[in-house]
Amino acid sequence: MSMAEPIVLYTDLISPFGYLGAVGLGPIAEKHGRTIDWRPFLLGVTVMQVMGLPPVPETPLKGPYALADQPRCFRLMGLEHNPPPERAMQPLAPNRALAWLRERDPALAVRFGLAVGRAHWSEGRNMSTPQALAEVAEPLGIKGPELIAAVQEPEVKAKLKSHVDAAIARGVFGAPTFDVDGELFWGHDRLYMVERWLETGGW
Amino acid sequence: MSMAEPIVLYTDLISPFGYLGAVGLGPIAEKHGRTIDWRPFLLGVTVMQVMGLPPVPETPLKGPYALADQPRCFRLMGLEHNPPPERAMQPLAPNRALAWLRERDPALAVRFGLAVGRAHWSEGRNMSTPQALAEVAEPLGIKGPELIAAVQEPEVKAKLKSHVDAAIARGVFGAPTFDVDGELFWGHDRLYMVERWLETGGW
Repeated sequence: MSMAEPIVLYTDLISPFGYLGAVGLGPIAEKHGRTIDWRPFLLGVTVMQVMGLPPVPETPLKGPYALADQPRCFRLMGLEHNPPPERAMQPLAPNRALAWLRERDPALAVRFGLAVGRAHWSEGRNMSTPQALAEVAEPLGIKGPELIAAVQEPEVKAKLKSHVDAAIARGVFGAPTFDVDGELFWGHDRLYMVERWLETGGW
Repeated sequence: MSMAEPIVLYTDLISPFGYLGAVGLGPIAEKHGRTIDWRPFLLGVTVMQVMGLPPVPETPLKGPYALADQPRCFRLMGLEHNPPPERAMQPLAPNRALAWLRERDPALAVRFGLAVGRAHWSEGRNMSTPQALAEVAEPLGIKGPELIAAVQEPEVKAKLKSHVDAAIARGVFGAPTFDVDGELFWGHDRLYMVERWLETGGW
């Protein structure tokens, strides 16, 4: 008997829409007996370096749209939208921490990713630093000092870089992107297609 | 008694996703007793000039994704995906024809826009020229020679330009964009939110 493949969730922890995608994917994956394999990547590399585009917040027309879109998408999913005053999360420490945890325990990495998103986007706690991440990690049974040390380790930095390279090779550019049995869907608003794909085996 | 406002559909006829948005919006609008006000704009102006971005097909990573996404989105809506070999539609004649028809009869403009999309994206008939558009228009009771003359008239050209300016002033950048009682939603994959907004009066 073959096990169903995990649903791969490519996301960058700095993305509020990536957080919405992770929250929404949970019950869909569970309903279909799938686990989630959360693989971090860096929007700063895919969007700015590979695609050659400015960040969305600095893009005329799209920047203001995305800013207004964010709170209503949180409300629609019943989530509080309360980012820290600075809004932006610095990407390296959070995504390295996720890459580190994923090697140890993929399910724990998913719980950590969700906890980081909730803390930053709903509880207004800026998740940019190893210290802030350690505080969120402790209640999940992750030792804070270990996390703080891990995100400075060369092999963890290299692991995140290899995730970024693999995501680009797979054709991933935006957060969240879902890989369901080899089919890519970009955007938390495509979860209805992810669900349909799982229900029908593809169309 | 106040009449319910029309749902404004901002789209550029060259967009296959705009066509999907128009098709999907029809039954939603009807269910909620709303008419559709189709206002043309030009992606070449919003995306390339105002946002300063390359066209999606030429954007690394996103170009290949969008190309693969197109046929599966058509299939999901039960529509044939059979564009002409050249794929691209030239924007000026189709969008001018729509701007011209909208002045005469907004409901007819919607039927025309749907017929143009069906012909180009499902029937492989390139809709770039006034002649091709006239052939699609005739069965709708629009006189072909009148359409061919109209798209050359300075006031029709100016009308399209004013639509483009108005769309940009409204914050529209991508096709399709729906304006539901003052709330903007971008993307045919956001129709589920348009429907929810109509059902709930906003959330």
